[in-house]
Amino acid sequence: MRRLRAAGHTVTETREPGGTLLGTEVRRVVLDPALEMGPLPEFLLYSASRAQLVAEVIRPALERGEVVVCDRYADSTLAYQGYGRGLDLGFLERVTQEATGGLRPDLTVLLDLDPALGLARAARRGQPDRLERADLAFHTRVREGFLALAAAEPGRVLVMDATRPENDLSADIWTAVAARRRPAPA
Amino acid sequence: MRRLRAAGHTVTETREPGGTLLGTEVRRVVLDPALEMGPLPEFLLYSASRAQLVAEVIRPALERGEVVVCDRYADSTLAYQGYGRGLDLGFLERVTQEATGGLRPDLTVLLDLDPALGLARAARRGQPDRLERADLAFHTRVREGFLALAAAEPGRVLVMDATRPENDLSADIWTAVAARRRPAPA
Repeated sequence: MRRLRAAGHTVTETREPGGTLLGTEVRRVVLDPALEMGPLPEFLLYSASRAQLVAEVIRPALERGEVVVCDRYADSTLAYQGYGRGLDLGFLERVTQEATGGLRPDLTVLLDLDPALGLARAARRGQPDRLERADLAFHTRVREGFLALAAAEPGRVLVMDATRPENDLSADIWTAVAARRRPAPA
Repeated sequence: MRRLRAAGHTVTETREPGGTLLGTEVRRVVLDPALEMGPLPEFLLYSASRAQLVAEVIRPALERGEVVVCDRYADSTLAYQGYGRGLDLGFLERVTQEATGGLRPDLTVLLDLDPALGLARAARRGQPDRLERADLAFHTRVREGFLALAAAEPGRVLVMDATRPENDLSADIWTAVAARRRPAPA
């Protein structure tokens, strides 16, 4: 972000679920450990948040010539709700296609980490949310899903070992971003 | 409801959006006049609520041999988000098929009312919610949608003139229900 801005780009950052008033409400609901929720409603809530985010934030920013950096997007849905929860991938893709109007990232950075380590990191951050409470087998399937999506589109997805030092990671990410970036507006 | 119970049936009543903890949260979000929300996120939120309702309430009640009476179900989605908001009906039907697992009512009662009269009734009830604020043209399209759905399935959908006296309506509804009901459990 800092480097993109230093290079003259205006950067819009998003996170999912969230990023709009509606998304913030959905985030609160979907991460609430007290709510009983099947995998399909969970998927539909994430998709509602994403559809609003694309229409209200991401598309307008791209039309203004900005760079958009998203903390999670459609791959997370396929990995968590498809590979993790076992929903039909074809159905998830069709709904995602509608929700995003077909908008896809130029570059996706996957910070890959052994789920046992990831869960330990989350536990140190405090009270786990609804997704963090899911078991190791679930998180293992999610990781395998992310890696499968990356393998299917190696030109779009950059897989990085998240145990490497942060400075190394950010240097490699910048190289991949720089290779794809269009000139900053004058 | 009273008559069904008098005839020995256990009756489960639902309303949408709502009917579960998740549905109540979704109801609060979707009817909030302060939230900006496109037609697609709106549809996905309703579908999330319905998927949870079917899995958590409706299917278990049917499996216990109960009669389930729903205040709104899938037809409302097709009428409001399809005919009213202009979303693709085929897409709505595919998602609804997944959200309900294909579960459809034996009988649907459509209380049909001129939208101008309906909006006036709603206005007398107090502060309008987000849907009630939509304009007359929208509500006219919604009504036409409901009537089109009814015309496509005359055996399932009973269209009633909602300006008739309440006693007449309930007598006719009971006739239609009685014709379809299975014997109450002994």
